[in-house]
Amino acid sequence: MTLAYETLSENRSFGGIQGVYRHQSQATGTAMTFAVYLPPEARNRKVPVLWYLSGLTCTHENAMTKAGAQEWAAEAGIALIFPDTSPRGEGVADDPAYDLGQGAGFYVDATEAPWAPHFRMWHYVTHELPELVFNNFALDRDAQGITGHSMGGHGALTIAMTFPERYKSVSAFAPIANPSESDWGRKQLTAYLGADKAAWRGHDSTLLMRERGYPGEILIDQGTDDQFLDLLKPEALAHAMTGRRQPGCFRMQQGYDHSYFFVQTFMADHIQWHTERLG
Amino acid sequence: MTLAYETLSENRSFGGIQGVYRHQSQATGTAMTFAVYLPPEARNRKVPVLWYLSGLTCTHENAMTKAGAQEWAAEAGIALIFPDTSPRGEGVADDPAYDLGQGAGFYVDATEAPWAPHFRMWHYVTHELPELVFNNFALDRDAQGITGHSMGGHGALTIAMTFPERYKSVSAFAPIANPSESDWGRKQLTAYLGADKAAWRGHDSTLLMRERGYPGEILIDQGTDDQFLDLLKPEALAHAMTGRRQPGCFRMQQGYDHSYFFVQTFMADHIQWHTERLG
Repeated sequence: MTLAYETLSENRSFGGIQGVYRHQSQATGTAMTFAVYLPPEARNRKVPVLWYLSGLTCTHENAMTKAGAQEWAAEAGIALIFPDTSPRGEGVADDPAYDLGQGAGFYVDATEAPWAPHFRMWHYVTHELPELVFNNFALDRDAQGITGHSMGGHGALTIAMTFPERYKSVSAFAPIANPSESDWGRKQLTAYLGADKAAWRGHDSTLLMRERGYPGEILIDQGTDDQFLDLLKPEALAHAMTGRRQPGCFRMQQGYDHSYFFVQTFMADHIQWHTERLG
Repeated sequence: MTLAYETLSENRSFGGIQGVYRHQSQATGTAMTFAVYLPPEARNRKVPVLWYLSGLTCTHENAMTKAGAQEWAAEAGIALIFPDTSPRGEGVADDPAYDLGQGAGFYVDATEAPWAPHFRMWHYVTHELPELVFNNFALDRDAQGITGHSMGGHGALTIAMTFPERYKSVSAFAPIANPSESDWGRKQLTAYLGADKAAWRGHDSTLLMRERGYPGEILIDQGTDDQFLDLLKPEALAHAMTGRRQPGCFRMQQGYDHSYFFVQTFMADHIQWHTERLG
């Protein structure tokens, strides 16, 4: 595994550094771009890390520019990592639809053609990129939390429930909560993992919640006026959480939609949530 | 003057509404898009207003999505208005350069061909758009402040010094401070207003500061690592402010550049500054 990377940009932000970097990924076989926000505190010591996974069509850039997260991360002394949402490039399979292929990796390791050679975002986000950033930035490997929006909320929840010893805190904004039963999920999981639903079980938050849950508390925010409620299926996850007696907080936020105006509004709460749990 | 407008989008944000609207401008002879953020307080009473003027290449959208202003505006109970930076469209004159023509109105009323028919951003921002928004939103006409970034900082300062009775507070982020003496200014003022520098005097903050100043305090933030320092000329404005004994605060911010990461970092300070002065 190569740990080399190049710096695309670094901007001072709230006393820290918002950087954008690129490296050659072995997981995806492509160049991958990611962003890291280091709070001022990272000059003195290794700081806790909050992974932020983005949604359909997004790159590393959307949350970095629109989520308003840096100010709270600076105040809390916590780093933010914004990975891309898929491999990209001319040699990478794609689909004309916005919700399949490039920009829509769904945080799985594809086993099916034509996706299998490059679409390995599960491994990338949970193994390869962590190795790179923990070896190169002042980040505390023992204090990791994870969050995300929409498809990224799906990624955050499924990853946290799979590796609860590693991700000590988890939250999500309007996650795709039950992809096995949604048009945001069935198509993609079939394409990437095949038609056998047994292969999907590790990639559906509602199913994982029913089967195993999460050892800590979970925070979910969902807007009541989200234009994608029928695809997100928050009721399935809320039912599974309460049915299991999963500790946590599921908030339906009056009047909010699916946009980054919603994410930004509740970002402070989420960063505080993670900070309290990552110590 | 028509006061009609259409709603392009409205999103809940920090308990208020971030709206984007379009109307047919008589000043520019084009359709113009603008954004208004109304804090929750606007449901109950008319609220103070902070005008935010954007920089080169920007539309109403840049600051709306990247400045992180809504949370502070919501907390302060102040509205934000984000105008576009020029007329746009197929029938509107333009130039291949990013810093002239569409996206680069410079907040002047052009008198020269081919710009004169549409490039009337001074009148648009100071007269036409105010009439529209004060007639249609819960905004307090007697509590207006103005700010902006780069070319928009230039606009905010020149407008506030011209109409100090109307704009009761003013600040700027990295303003184009002395356009008469800069490549960000000479070309544009010549194109829009002609070669006679007498016509430029009302559109140069440094010159206006020397001649008349501003009756209140002025806040300026400028990054020390701004890649455009040679074009912005903060030293000219700082010299004029201190030479005049103009009350205010000129802050050189260590390590910050010209980006929205800089703007976002100091947005809370600016909104607090205006809120304190608009009561």
